Amino acid sequence: MENFSLAIHGGAGTILKSAMTDRKERRYHRALEASLKAGEKILSKGGSALDAVEAAVISMENSELFNAGKGSVFTHEGDHEMDASIMNGADRNAGAVAGVRRVKNPISLCREIMENCEHVFLIGEGAEHFAETRKLEMESKDYFSTDFRYEQLQKIRDTHQTLLDHSDHELKKFGTVGAVAKDVHGNLAAATSTGGITNKRYMRVGDTSIIGAGTYAENDICAVSSTGWGEYYIRAVAAYDVAAMMKYGDKSLDEAAHQLIHEVIPKMGGDGGLIAVDSNGKITMPFNTQGMYRGFVQSDGNSRTLIFK
Amino acid sequence: MENFSLAIHGGAGTILKSAMTDRKERRYHRALEASLKAGEKILSKGGSALDAVEAAVISMENSELFNAGKGSVFTHEGDHEMDASIMNGADRNAGAVAGVRRVKNPISLCREIMENCEHVFLIGEGAEHFAETRKLEMESKDYFSTDFRYEQLQKIRDTHQTLLDHSDHELKKFGTVGAVAKDVHGNLAAATSTGGITNKRYMRVGDTSIIGAGTYAENDICAVSSTGWGEYYIRAVAAYDVAAMMKYGDKSLDEAAHQLIHEVIPKMGGDGGLIAVDSNGKITMPFNTQGMYRGFVQSDGNSRTLIFK
Repeated sequence: MENFSLAIHGGAGTILKSAMTDRKERRYHRALEASLKAGEKILSKGGSALDAVEAAVISMENSELFNAGKGSVFTHEGDHEMDASIMNGADRNAGAVAGVRRVKNPISLCREIMENCEHVFLIGEGAEHFAETRKLEMESKDYFSTDFRYEQLQKIRDTHQTLLDHSDHELKKFGTVGAVAKDVHGNLAAATSTGGITNKRYMRVGDTSIIGAGTYAENDICAVSSTGWGEYYIRAVAAYDVAAMMKYGDKSLDEAAHQLIHEVIPKMGGDGGLIAVDSNGKITMPFNTQGMYRGFVQSDGNSRTLIFK
Repeated sequence: MENFSLAIHGGAGTILKSAMTDRKERRYHRALEASLKAGEKILSKGGSALDAVEAAVISMENSELFNAGKGSVFTHEGDHEMDASIMNGADRNAGAVAGVRRVKNPISLCREIMENCEHVFLIGEGAEHFAETRKLEMESKDYFSTDFRYEQLQKIRDTHQTLLDHSDHELKKFGTVGAVAKDVHGNLAAATSTGGITNKRYMRVGDTSIIGAGTYAENDICAVSSTGWGEYYIRAVAAYDVAAMMKYGDKSLDEAAHQLIHEVIPKMGGDGGLIAVDSNGKITMPFNTQGMYRGFVQSDGNSRTLIFK
């Protein structure tokens, strides 16, 4: 049996120690630990990387601390529009959704699309219609709404700003959740899910839905889940760029991820982070922001959750 | 002044000589020539690659012969949902839309998003709402509908098949249009537009909307526009894979495009083609199907339109 590895993130951005109470910090650590536990339970029994990343992401989608599933941010119109994608490294199969409003766990809808739909990418009401044919759990708007996110919207609703261009530190956080894993069979998988950015309009879709930008997995290379200023991650084809540097440029996982996060993305004007695992189970979690909610667990018992640098 | 190059495609697939009348063939050649002329007019006066690819694609969107803009295929519900994207090699800026129903020229909406919106990717009614704020030309459903496409829908509507899995040769064609260009200033650009696949459901989106899959441009590397079985092109991150092989693997444009179209995509089970231009103005147009509507024009006067192998 080979080793296994799981890494997760709950978003990167301006997460200031000074703006964080001890109690709030503990809540985040507990939520990250719960997500790791959900994935580890599967991997330690010989389960698949795909099942593990889905379980880890569901755990964070169900926590209102993270901007995905329950606790998703509000759009300008006061709604929630969620994006997600999943990819299986073994066959490079994938599933993705954008702009869904009623699906409890968008990552599970991605999995259903990957396995039970001839298509890869479904959007809006069409994606919800497919979710209903697969009997996925649906929720009303109230389920996703939280007071904290509603206050965030009120702060910037009447400006033309989105979470991407304001000066409020508390708001400048790229709320996305994601997981990457290598299982004991040597398979890799990646999953990413988000509510997008507060006050977004025109049904904006970020990198989270985009295979190659927010999510990528290919056995023998790596699995990647991104969190950052989505527009730059799309333009940089971020997740696949890490894989391509390894595949064609003989870079290590660390070197490739470092180059993307500390050179390519900042040079374009963007910021954020990513988590990635390679075919040996090695993990990297670089970010160029002040913090990134993150954690990992490996079969050697090594495990940790972190928030700041 | 450097040289300029423009290449265009109008879709790849089972395009059989035996199923094509001389008259029909001439119509396609004329439409391809009109598209080349629209782009060449701009490039020969020192205009930008970006303006040229937009003009070339608009010409094909406005022709009912191609599956993009006017003449888009019908969805299962009898509607039209169009996808498109554009990318500027100079700064890797980009704009993309999916699932728009009322915008006359989806490629121009992509350009507006790229230049006048803080986001890159807008979908559905949100994208249409943005189009209206930018005063883009909107059309009713009747404008996009053609008898030929309606007959195609009737042939497969009551099956669960889409254009992707049927035996009717005439239907097995990946209707997409696209253009890539290098201008005399050394800038590259790419643009792609489609009505998707006949009988599609659940608001399926293919690779045409995806920066990195359907469209990619980066100065000093290449510009790529894909046409093929979109699900495979998304999973292969097709357009960026060509660029990555050149950037990190020191492959030539021909070698990289050949590897993608004749090795990577068929190995996964997909098929299709692409057009690409590199920073020297060299053009490649590989496909692994029976035909691809295509053409090119270069500043040395070399120009041609082709359909079959």
